[in-house]
Amino acid sequence: MDPIDQDTAYDVFSKQCPSRGTLEHVTGRWGALTLGALHDGTFRFNELRRRVDGVSEKMLSQTLHALERDGLVHREAQPTNPPRVEYRLTPLGREITERLMSLIHFVEGRMDGVLEARERYDSVTAGGR
Amino acid sequence: MDPIDQDTAYDVFSKQCPSRGTLEHVTGRWGALTLGALHDGTFRFNELRRRVDGVSEKMLSQTLHALERDGLVHREAQPTNPPRVEYRLTPLGREITERLMSLIHFVEGRMDGVLEARERYDSVTAGGR
Repeated sequence: MDPIDQDTAYDVFSKQCPSRGTLEHVTGRWGALTLGALHDGTFRFNELRRRVDGVSEKMLSQTLHALERDGLVHREAQPTNPPRVEYRLTPLGREITERLMSLIHFVEGRMDGVLEARERYDSVTAGGR
Repeated sequence: MDPIDQDTAYDVFSKQCPSRGTLEHVTGRWGALTLGALHDGTFRFNELRRRVDGVSEKMLSQTLHALERDGLVHREAQPTNPPRVEYRLTPLGREITERLMSLIHFVEGRMDGVLEARERYDSVTAGGR
């Protein structure tokens, strides 16, 4: 656990709390992968699209907007012609992404156990549970 | 970062990797909130449903099945009449949930900054971006 005051005014378990929306931007399929990609540096839209395997142009665009609006991603348009637009994490985005990556790497590191559990589950289910 | 070997065979950034599915079970809206609720103890289905504000019976059932299949949640049916079915985290589920809760609490703790960023973003957008 982080040494953070956990009695904040915000509570993702409450349906109305805005933190639930932000958590979804961070942990949603494309949000998590986009933050993870930006953890490695500053990228242009098409570079990001290649890194986030499987994302459509529309979904990546929506994802970046939501993360920018929440203050986690910074979008910078250089005054060139054509404009060069780059995305990078803000300091807040970086802090959140560190914790997200910790979770992602942990899950990746435990996948052997997860796949074994799935096999057990499926064999029991097939045998008439 | 966790002291975990990050050169695992699994990579959520790859579309085909099964770790992407497990990450989604863990971080999806209802998966995250269900794991978070189970972080507090052992619960019956209806108790969980009250704790995860807004979840439907069908979604909670699907969520629990996916988490059980991945080996993160243990389901125990007591041989009573009617059977008393309880859910709790497995040791693996607990390890993953610790990291998830760390992320959740961190996001909750930073929501003032997120909401300020949203206001700035919306005022700039409204002013003709």
